[in-house]
Amino acid sequence: MDKTVTLSLGALETLSRELLTRHGFDEAHADAITRSVVAAQRDECHSHGVYRLIDCVETLRRGGVSPDATPYVLDVSPGIVRVDAGQGCSLLAFERARPALIDKAREHGVALLALNNAFHFSALWPEVESLADAGLVALAMTPSHAFVAPAGGQRPLLGTNPIAFSWPRPDGMPFTFDFATSVVARGEIELHRRAGDTIPEGWALDAQGRATLDPDAALNGAMLTFGGYKGSALSIMIELLAGPLIGDLLGHETSPANEERAGRPWHGELIVVIDPHRLLGDEAARHLQHAEALFAGVLEQGARLPSRRRHEARRRSREQGVTIPRGLYQELVRLRDGARG
Amino acid sequence: MDKTVTLSLGALETLSRELLTRHGFDEAHADAITRSVVAAQRDECHSHGVYRLIDCVETLRRGGVSPDATPYVLDVSPGIVRVDAGQGCSLLAFERARPALIDKAREHGVALLALNNAFHFSALWPEVESLADAGLVALAMTPSHAFVAPAGGQRPLLGTNPIAFSWPRPDGMPFTFDFATSVVARGEIELHRRAGDTIPEGWALDAQGRATLDPDAALNGAMLTFGGYKGSALSIMIELLAGPLIGDLLGHETSPANEERAGRPWHGELIVVIDPHRLLGDEAARHLQHAEALFAGVLEQGARLPSRRRHEARRRSREQGVTIPRGLYQELVRLRDGARG
Repeated sequence: MDKTVTLSLGALETLSRELLTRHGFDEAHADAITRSVVAAQRDECHSHGVYRLIDCVETLRRGGVSPDATPYVLDVSPGIVRVDAGQGCSLLAFERARPALIDKAREHGVALLALNNAFHFSALWPEVESLADAGLVALAMTPSHAFVAPAGGQRPLLGTNPIAFSWPRPDGMPFTFDFATSVVARGEIELHRRAGDTIPEGWALDAQGRATLDPDAALNGAMLTFGGYKGSALSIMIELLAGPLIGDLLGHETSPANEERAGRPWHGELIVVIDPHRLLGDEAARHLQHAEALFAGVLEQGARLPSRRRHEARRRSREQGVTIPRGLYQELVRLRDGARG
Repeated sequence: MDKTVTLSLGALETLSRELLTRHGFDEAHADAITRSVVAAQRDECHSHGVYRLIDCVETLRRGGVSPDATPYVLDVSPGIVRVDAGQGCSLLAFERARPALIDKAREHGVALLALNNAFHFSALWPEVESLADAGLVALAMTPSHAFVAPAGGQRPLLGTNPIAFSWPRPDGMPFTFDFATSVVARGEIELHRRAGDTIPEGWALDAQGRATLDPDAALNGAMLTFGGYKGSALSIMIELLAGPLIGDLLGHETSPANEERAGRPWHGELIVVIDPHRLLGDEAARHLQHAEALFAGVLEQGARLPSRRRHEARRRSREQGVTIPRGLYQELVRLRDGARG
């Protein structure tokens, strides 16, 4: 029997939606979550793909996410929109606040979205890319639970604190990146654990603050930041901006949902949006075209252009469907057809 | 004879101002430059300290900076202020635009400063820290000439592209960082060259794209980004935001001033400012206090808190003056007393 299963994007979306509603997510949340995890799977970002649906259902069972919270959007100032996710998933809250965010950016040139009190498990790039699709430049960040030691430290304090950026391109898909300020995303260690592999050197410390190659020890210890003290400084910035600045928690004050229903997984996300057309007026098109010289320069020397591999995977997935491990597929089908958690 | 000279901050300021005006900078520019280089020297950021005065005069002689350009401030939108430095030094342009930037941030919650067409040699932290002193959160970035290879590349394309951030603290000096997205600031390689030292592994490639420990080869080759492809992605972001987004140049389109007066050193800088009080209203003080838990967490495990060493140096310098190498002091005095360049 094949070790993998190939599905069309439509079939994967249906599976995801049915699985989520079966376990109690309302349609709006199920749709928003499905859009994000299927987009990640489509772009071959496995660590934020459909395997996260298992976590979503588990988190719901553990009281870590509201399945039907209605996001509450608040117009704070000419440049700021806030949305309270009400302990629901961040994805629907983002979608509900997105129109106001775009309007503010277009009118004032720059705008912020402060997203509060959300369960957050998803990649940030689909959000910033959707803003670049609207012709805007976007920067997003969120803290996560305290899994990461600051540079020179031994214990978890910081979240994996991802940052994502997207830039609209005149004739193609946006230039986008999205990375954890930990050496790798926590999902990568999780995937190594599930595969029974060791992790590379330099990723993590064990609970005693010693270097480790064991994914279990790493998950119980502390991950390291990328780029030493510079990555650590960025991680602190992200924690401040997507935490206290928007009236939300620090990573070490949150915790994953757990069996005892005592987790506190809810936290914030910040998105900054700039409208190049408001800033540059009639000159915007010329300067956006000008930016292409930088991308050309990167490609000319055979260097990596972020998001290019992802966009290639997207084209492939649209033509050929997506391929996932059979074990994962069977787990998702069981979850769709099984008893409500 | 002592190898060093110790001067009061006032004496160093006077030396700097006299040196700059002697060579043709007008008083406004001389004052703005002096404030920046003396602040760096005071905080023991040697790579942006008073040795940069030699470069300033040299750049003036080579036609790379206007000594008396009047910055032109333009109100673009409720969220955006632009300032054209007119090929003068960025520092005076920032100072002239700062009041409008602060007003916009306070009124709308978030504001941008697009600073164009400037000669830029200075550290960014004095600027973001001055905004934090006004109770605001600030993020600044600027490209520089193409000295750095993108991850996976071999040739210079990106600037050293520094990013700086500052956060107001209730009872102390702001939390601030400022780092190049190259492994080190170019000034560090320059200091190694002046000292006759080799540079550490992993800093740079030579002109053939091979790893090198020779500071001269490094200055003629390509520096590397910090943190591999993540640092490279950030560097690209900085180049886009402080370049085409604000209608200015990419690093590889600029070049240092040179003997033939054919350099094109002028480029942009972007500053994003957020007002926590506009965002959080009456809750702002409580959340700013809450952020202190993160700083305490860093210090508790003996990890590095960015800007702490700099602020310690500041206290020391205010009490005891600053100590610089005698050779540098003599060079500055010669420059102050010598013929106009």
